[in-house]
Amino acid sequence: MKKSLLALAVLGAFAGAASAQSSVTVYGIVDLGFAHVDDGSAAGSKNGIDSGGQSASRIGFKGTEDLGNGLKALFQLEATIAADTGAAFNTATAATSGPNTGLSNNSGGFNRFATVGLQSAAFGTVLLGRQTSVIKDAYDQIDPFGDGGTVGAISSIFFNGALAGDFGRISNSVKYTSNSFSGFKANAAYGFGETVGDTGANSNYGLGLGYANGPLNVQFAYHNQDRTNAALVQTGENKLMLLGATYDFGVVKLHGAYADTKLEAPIGTEVKFRNYMIGASAPIGPGTLFASYSANDNRTVGDSDAQKFAISYSYDLSKRTNLYTGYSRTSNDNGSRIGLGGTAPLGETASIFNVGIRHKF
Amino acid sequence: MKKSLLALAVLGAFAGAASAQSSVTVYGIVDLGFAHVDDGSAAGSKNGIDSGGQSASRIGFKGTEDLGNGLKALFQLEATIAADTGAAFNTATAATSGPNTGLSNNSGGFNRFATVGLQSAAFGTVLLGRQTSVIKDAYDQIDPFGDGGTVGAISSIFFNGALAGDFGRISNSVKYTSNSFSGFKANAAYGFGETVGDTGANSNYGLGLGYANGPLNVQFAYHNQDRTNAALVQTGENKLMLLGATYDFGVVKLHGAYADTKLEAPIGTEVKFRNYMIGASAPIGPGTLFASYSANDNRTVGDSDAQKFAISYSYDLSKRTNLYTGYSRTSNDNGSRIGLGGTAPLGETASIFNVGIRHKF
Amino acid sequence: MKKSLLALAVLGAFAGAASAQSSVTVYGIVDLGFAHVDDGSAAGSKNGIDSGGQSASRIGFKGTEDLGNGLKALFQLEATIAADTGAAFNTATAATSGPNTGLSNNSGGFNRFATVGLQSAAFGTVLLGRQTSVIKDAYDQIDPFGDGGTVGAISSIFFNGALAGDFGRISNSVKYTSNSFSGFKANAAYGFGETVGDTGANSNYGLGLGYANGPLNVQFAYHNQDRTNAALVQTGENKLMLLGATYDFGVVKLHGAYADTKLEAPIGTEVKFRNYMIGASAPIGPGTLFASYSANDNRTVGDSDAQKFAISYSYDLSKRTNLYTGYSRTSNDNGSRIGLGGTAPLGETASIFNVGIRHKF
Repeated sequence: MKKSLLALAVLGAFAGAASAQSSVTVYGIVDLGFAHVDDGSAAGSKNGIDSGGQSASRIGFKGTEDLGNGLKALFQLEATIAADTGAAFNTATAATSGPNTGLSNNSGGFNRFATVGLQSAAFGTVLLGRQTSVIKDAYDQIDPFGDGGTVGAISSIFFNGALAGDFGRISNSVKYTSNSFSGFKANAAYGFGETVGDTGANSNYGLGLGYANGPLNVQFAYHNQDRTNAALVQTGENKLMLLGATYDFGVVKLHGAYADTKLEAPIGTEVKFRNYMIGASAPIGPGTLFASYSANDNRTVGDSDAQKFAISYSYDLSKRTNLYTGYSRTSNDNGSRIGLGGTAPLGETASIFNVGIRHKF
Repeated sequence: MKKSLLALAVLGAFAGAASAQSSVTVYGIVDLGFAHVDDGSAAGSKNGIDSGGQSASRIGFKGTEDLGNGLKALFQLEATIAADTGAAFNTATAATSGPNTGLSNNSGGFNRFATVGLQSAAFGTVLLGRQTSVIKDAYDQIDPFGDGGTVGAISSIFFNGALAGDFGRISNSVKYTSNSFSGFKANAAYGFGETVGDTGANSNYGLGLGYANGPLNVQFAYHNQDRTNAALVQTGENKLMLLGATYDFGVVKLHGAYADTKLEAPIGTEVKFRNYMIGASAPIGPGTLFASYSANDNRTVGDSDAQKFAISYSYDLSKRTNLYTGYSRTSNDNGSRIGLGGTAPLGETASIFNVGIRHKF
Repeated sequence: MKKSLLALAVLGAFAGAASAQSSVTVYGIVDLGFAHVDDGSAAGSKNGIDSGGQSASRIGFKGTEDLGNGLKALFQLEATIAADTGAAFNTATAATSGPNTGLSNNSGGFNRFATVGLQSAAFGTVLLGRQTSVIKDAYDQIDPFGDGGTVGAISSIFFNGALAGDFGRISNSVKYTSNSFSGFKANAAYGFGETVGDTGANSNYGLGLGYANGPLNVQFAYHNQDRTNAALVQTGENKLMLLGATYDFGVVKLHGAYADTKLEAPIGTEVKFRNYMIGASAPIGPGTLFASYSANDNRTVGDSDAQKFAISYSYDLSKRTNLYTGYSRTSNDNGSRIGLGGTAPLGETASIFNVGIRHKF
């Protein structure tokens, strides 16, 4: 991730003051593999080469400038790539303001990060722009499958499967992240709805608190999303709460999470969910095994729960390149339709098997 | 802007001939801040995080190759970023040929620059592709707010507010820029309309002459745009003339500009405008103050003038990073609707206040 | 192409292990020039500044990581740029799976390459993603005009003019390329159709064998494309075969190719074509002359053949920058409509003259 930066910093030792200004890092991931996908449709399954089996393929540009006195300026621009077809930057649905600000992959332009801000050794970091939500920041540390992938990421089932689509990334936002104090770290974010005449309409806010020290990592986060449709005189609030933890025993690292969600837009359509996840990651043989069991419990509508089991094995060819294989299976009750990052037919089971290569640059 | 280039040039001293070929500079600006925007609509004002408060956010790639004998090859590719949402490269309205070649921000791809050409120490520079118009080249040197921003740039009001949208950047063009002779410098551009069967249809041309020496900078430019709609048997010409100057007294730099515009498409709809601007920029306290008063005088239709007042203060954290705050107010007569880079309701006043951070990389 | 990589590798000698990881190369081509284009339409000809007169303008990111034991990881992301207008990444028609996977220039995102894979000193190279077809790999070595350009590339006439549009690049694919053994080299590719319930539907596969040794280069390739429209219960296969060779006599290099094509989708619409090309490239004066004569012979429908003659002259200002001028003329029988990379009116002649500059970075 920071190689070019490092290289140029080292270069600075030769070049003197001039190149000490150099700080654009071009980085990214290309993750491609064979995938057998059965989304539960009557038409059958699909074989292909898919992008993002372990991590979303992406390209980014970022940099840091030392301003002196413990202050740094930061920027980051990052875009998802559908590397199986090359599609990037160009989806019709651009990331705009409002309740749909947290668009998922391929939503046009630098859909993952577009930020600038300041980092202070004394006071923490403030970033403006489009960035991950506080609840995603927490989740990514707890999920055994980390930053995603089509097999493992439990964002496909938590919050009724809505994290990736609606709450993962927020445009028009400001986020504060504290420095770490004896392992404690807090963050808070606000995303403007940018609605004319009503500042609160369609805004998002989130609060997070974490403790990471030695083998223990505990993360708590809360996310609130206002949804206002002035034309229909409808309004509501979506509320998400997450508590998760990991503990590293060395031979195995255990992962667990609990979430509580209320989706309430428009008024009168309130639906409540609870989520549970237990998982493990462990060095086994020459690689690492990841596994998780997660559940979506619909507390408002009966016979509408879903369960997901995911397992994968990753083998490092280097620090930057690895091979992987994985399998996951999401089972739906008759009233649920959670698929593989999208929707499955009501009551059906969606599964995916893949084997691929991930290269970080 | 030229750090990586510099770094690699220095590297060349170690690497010898091989790296003397290296010359891709990745550069850009991320400018984000809080903005309170009142575009005069009855619905009220809007608060949010906006991109480009002081300069349009952008990313670019450029390079120079020394061909020997005082000759260099140049290329530049530069795209606008709506950094508040990450949108980039992807707007539906791509920059094509014809009268709308000079599209403004976010018009698809490398909307700011896509050029290649030659620079001669003896004869000047020739660039092909999509590039700034001659009249924008002149204006950017005279406007106290320089290369734009949502608060200050008087391109929002000059030429009836059309510079940014229609005359600022020209596709399918060739531009010649002379070297400087005792401070004098000239340039000329031609943008093909690329109309089948009629080379002149929808073409643009511009001529510029400047004198920059010591504290004085004087710029003159003329822009002519043919507008032909063969289907409607309509044709016309838009003509823009600009004269501007700055004088740096040290404690304060004064800015002034006068423009004359005739928009004449389709035939029979001729409208004439005059524009005036007086401005100042001055180092005050730890930063720099910028201010301008500008006017659009509709000489054809009565009660259709507009005035704009803009002020901002910029504080440098480094050569590349600064904080800023600004305010501007555009007042319209009953028949005018100039807004903040777009349109306001007829006769209303549009205003913006912002505070943000701009980082150049 | 590999300058930055080289520079960073050299830097590694100073920086040690850290920068040995550095391996992102930003590279590309900006090719722009004046073009007089007559596509045979009754409306007349067109003058303009066009992109890609000699090679498609493009920008890319690529890298190599040494994994030890003769194994390397590779990635490449490359996008076409319409440098005359700046358009890039943003065309509506994204490259998806199926029979239209081989989309040509400007089809959205990294439309030229999006690949990751492994290269073994012992076993060859495997790449996944979107990449050139085997038949295009063969052709690019045989065509005197090499990797394209609006004047010369015979892909505009071979296979009934369909190579660039439909068979040149394949999404969702895996390709194996052997190492060279005494000049012999083979490759094979498979592109998944990604059709639900029918893996073979809309898939592509290709096989290639080449011999390059000293002055002789012989290339053979076969491409098979399944076209299945389940809704219409239609299916068919497009089959392309190519045999080509070049021989370098030093004072002149001769180029020749023969191709056999059967387009058969939907069932009952089988059309057969044969193609011939003879060409030459030679260092003449301070530059290089390229010329080719090529023909499309429609063996199914009468009075539907086409012939193309192309000539260009290229003058190097450096290894990376050159000037060029070219002319080509494509004549159609009454039943043929092959144009300049697109279609001409039935039976008309399309011609182009250009003069431009190409800069590689």
